[in-house]
Amino acid sequence: MIADAGLTVLARHGARGLTHRAVDEAARVPAGTTSNYFRSRDALITGLVDRIGERLSPTPEDLERRRAEPPGPALFADYIRDIVRRLTTEREVTLALFELRLESGRRPELADVLGRWQRAAFEGDVAFNEEAGLPGGRRQIALFHYAIEGLLFDRLTTSIDPETPTDEVIDDLVEGLLR
Amino acid sequence: MIADAGLTVLARHGARGLTHRAVDEAARVPAGTTSNYFRSRDALITGLVDRIGERLSPTPEDLERRRAEPPGPALFADYIRDIVRRLTTEREVTLALFELRLESGRRPELADVLGRWQRAAFEGDVAFNEEAGLPGGRRQIALFHYAIEGLLFDRLTTSIDPETPTDEVIDDLVEGLLR
Repeated sequence: MIADAGLTVLARHGARGLTHRAVDEAARVPAGTTSNYFRSRDALITGLVDRIGERLSPTPEDLERRRAEPPGPALFADYIRDIVRRLTTEREVTLALFELRLESGRRPELADVLGRWQRAAFEGDVAFNEEAGLPGGRRQIALFHYAIEGLLFDRLTTSIDPETPTDEVIDDLVEGLLR
Repeated sequence: MIADAGLTVLARHGARGLTHRAVDEAARVPAGTTSNYFRSRDALITGLVDRIGERLSPTPEDLERRRAEPPGPALFADYIRDIVRRLTTEREVTLALFELRLESGRRPELADVLGRWQRAAFEGDVAFNEEAGLPGGRRQIALFHYAIEGLLFDRLTTSIDPETPTDEVIDDLVEGLLR
């Protein structure tokens, strides 16, 4: 799939390496195919942002499994562990998102698309938590966003403390930040 | 200064844009000057990592001012605020560091240099805290690293919650994570 190949290019070569031709090569499709699907670089990037959302979303099975559990700090911690596991497994997608966020500092059109998408996802997280009767409001969820993104940045690039298991860090964060 | 021009190139064009020639241009020096100082791309990157350390270090005046205050959570929060202020003001340096960390996932030699430098800085933070009699051990300081890096990533690129002042986020983090 072309969008997946685009995410691979982003993760492996950075935003500057993202060209229609590089995506053609990564997807092993004839030259010009990516341009047919995504006419401009902005259209390509918008397509990649959408695809990131699809690939990082929980599966229906994930959601079903958790729905049966009683809401509380333990379930909140389970959700956080699921998210971190998904973003760690989908390493290239998470790195592609970090690349796009750095690129957004250089290109206001991208900051627009990406910022809107991130804020919608954040508000979705807040609404989900409330509907599920989970602890933690808007303020706490923002804190978790920062801490988890920093933790993933550490784990997916150079780490300051590789010996401590990621799940222990999550437990510490839940214990401290959820109130 | 050539290393500063290199950091500007990194922040503005990403790791893939970092070439000796691009640094010559950014520093407005004759072509070939950067190559004279830093013979290889690895030497250039090592020079940039050193320069990041210099530019993000607290000034002697900063340290002197805080040394007079009694150690405790309030002083710890002041130090965190100082760090965040410095990294926010030195926007290009912080972004250059994020770029290098993403690049380190693609280049093991860089991961080596950068990882060693980050871990030494982390151990330095732990030792500083202990010597100053401040609350928070190794585990807590790692949590602050993750949370603060995620917060800076948010504030320097696209933000999920731009309305909440950064200092309020820091207060929440200190209240929750320092124990």
